[in-house]
Amino acid sequence: MQIVTSLPDLRTARLSLTGRVGLVPTMGYLHEGHLSLVRQSQAECDHTIVTIFVNPTQFGANEDLSKYPRDLERDLSLLRPLGVDVVWTPSPEIMYPPGYQTWVEVEALTHPLEGAMRPGHFRGVTTVVAKLFNATQPHKAYFGQKDAQQAAVIRRMAVDLNFPLEVVVCPTTREADGLAMSSRNKYLNEAERKAATVLFRALSAAKDLYEGGERDAEKIRAKMTEVLEAEPLAQMQYVSCADYDTLEELDVVKGKALLSMAVFLGKTRLIDNFVLG
Amino acid sequence: MQIVTSLPDLRTARLSLTGRVGLVPTMGYLHEGHLSLVRQSQAECDHTIVTIFVNPTQFGANEDLSKYPRDLERDLSLLRPLGVDVVWTPSPEIMYPPGYQTWVEVEALTHPLEGAMRPGHFRGVTTVVAKLFNATQPHKAYFGQKDAQQAAVIRRMAVDLNFPLEVVVCPTTREADGLAMSSRNKYLNEAERKAATVLFRALSAAKDLYEGGERDAEKIRAKMTEVLEAEPLAQMQYVSCADYDTLEELDVVKGKALLSMAVFLGKTRLIDNFVLG
Repeated sequence: MQIVTSLPDLRTARLSLTGRVGLVPTMGYLHEGHLSLVRQSQAECDHTIVTIFVNPTQFGANEDLSKYPRDLERDLSLLRPLGVDVVWTPSPEIMYPPGYQTWVEVEALTHPLEGAMRPGHFRGVTTVVAKLFNATQPHKAYFGQKDAQQAAVIRRMAVDLNFPLEVVVCPTTREADGLAMSSRNKYLNEAERKAATVLFRALSAAKDLYEGGERDAEKIRAKMTEVLEAEPLAQMQYVSCADYDTLEELDVVKGKALLSMAVFLGKTRLIDNFVLG
Repeated sequence: MQIVTSLPDLRTARLSLTGRVGLVPTMGYLHEGHLSLVRQSQAECDHTIVTIFVNPTQFGANEDLSKYPRDLERDLSLLRPLGVDVVWTPSPEIMYPPGYQTWVEVEALTHPLEGAMRPGHFRGVTTVVAKLFNATQPHKAYFGQKDAQQAAVIRRMAVDLNFPLEVVVCPTTREADGLAMSSRNKYLNEAERKAATVLFRALSAAKDLYEGGERDAEKIRAKMTEVLEAEPLAQMQYVSCADYDTLEELDVVKGKALLSMAVFLGKTRLIDNFVLG
């Protein structure tokens, strides 16, 4: 496993790989969700590059950039047994040197949901992912369904900008009690961790309603709200029942839909989603 | 010479090329300036791809998109003898299909000069060039110094977004009387065509001043203005004596500087520039 930091070293490492290359972009502090992306890349590609970069441009001014968990040695020890070929760990100064001034933006898809709550977030995401795509030149790039809007935005960007690669979106990995895996789960205290299953419970209740025949999106959103409000430690930020492709809120569920939500447990903001249809 | 329109056909054509590939992006209506870029690509690379696409997103609402000159047969007949491998002629619908919503923007460098006069122009340029880079995957891409700010902006974008290629900027090709070659020269009537040498004359007078030791940027700009104002058919839009790297206006010329201007001859807007130092 080659571990490289500089862009020239990455280029050299990339040129040493022949055949199909898979990219797994991460912000580190890896969990089983990330590792499942790596395994899928390993299964589908000849080589896998993992990037570890806590991207400052996707954090808002009041968000958790400085306290975002980091543990490179632990991350590398998790990746080694999987047979990853290259790990790229650029510094912020390598990614955004003095004079940096170029941004990639996706429009309509970034306006609702996470985009509405986190202004500038997706501009940071699409910019850094475009940079990672260009730097690593993968044939396939792997993202988790847990960040559903991010996956949709990146898929859109890849098509719109003619990136010669396939964006692969992999299922959310969950703890035994249903909590979606996230590096931010580390922030939760014991009581919050228990209460955090409320996202999965709210999504499951809404899905049950849908599977029972309900197609009124407002009633589906109300069900999620009801479950979330019954949990004293949870503070709902939004719930959504949106068109799967456009992410616009639905009145009536027809075809594929995305149920999603953002919820605070104390100071920790968690997101989760289910796909219907 | 393969002539392809669709993106899948381009991808197939690109995969058939081995070794180093040069890209010459054009808006067609080719002149000797474009052909000099093709020759340089042919000299430096194993294969050359030329793209011909009048990019609607870089034209302002009141600009000349609909009347921009087009003659594909003539363009192809000029490229065939040069041994070009692939010509890509996508339609606007291929480049910007329904739902298209991704944009690449360079910030500070696009604010002065052409960017100030043509709002949105460079966003269109950087977006389409990013798409062309991704679609054609060149090792080198060739642009003309005539569009000096465009060249600077694209160089910046390529570095910022980690495109794995070299941006090559080639000297401006001029008519015998000094007029910089441009597809828009076709718009000029006979009197305007004669008067259009005023850009070259103004730049030459400013350069003479500089070579005589003048370093006061305001005096250099005043000299260009003086020459332009002496030509009754010319209407100056701006003159500039700016830092070569940042494109910020100078007080005192130190190091490399860019002399540039935009001038109307009747309804035709022409630009030209010299590099000092």
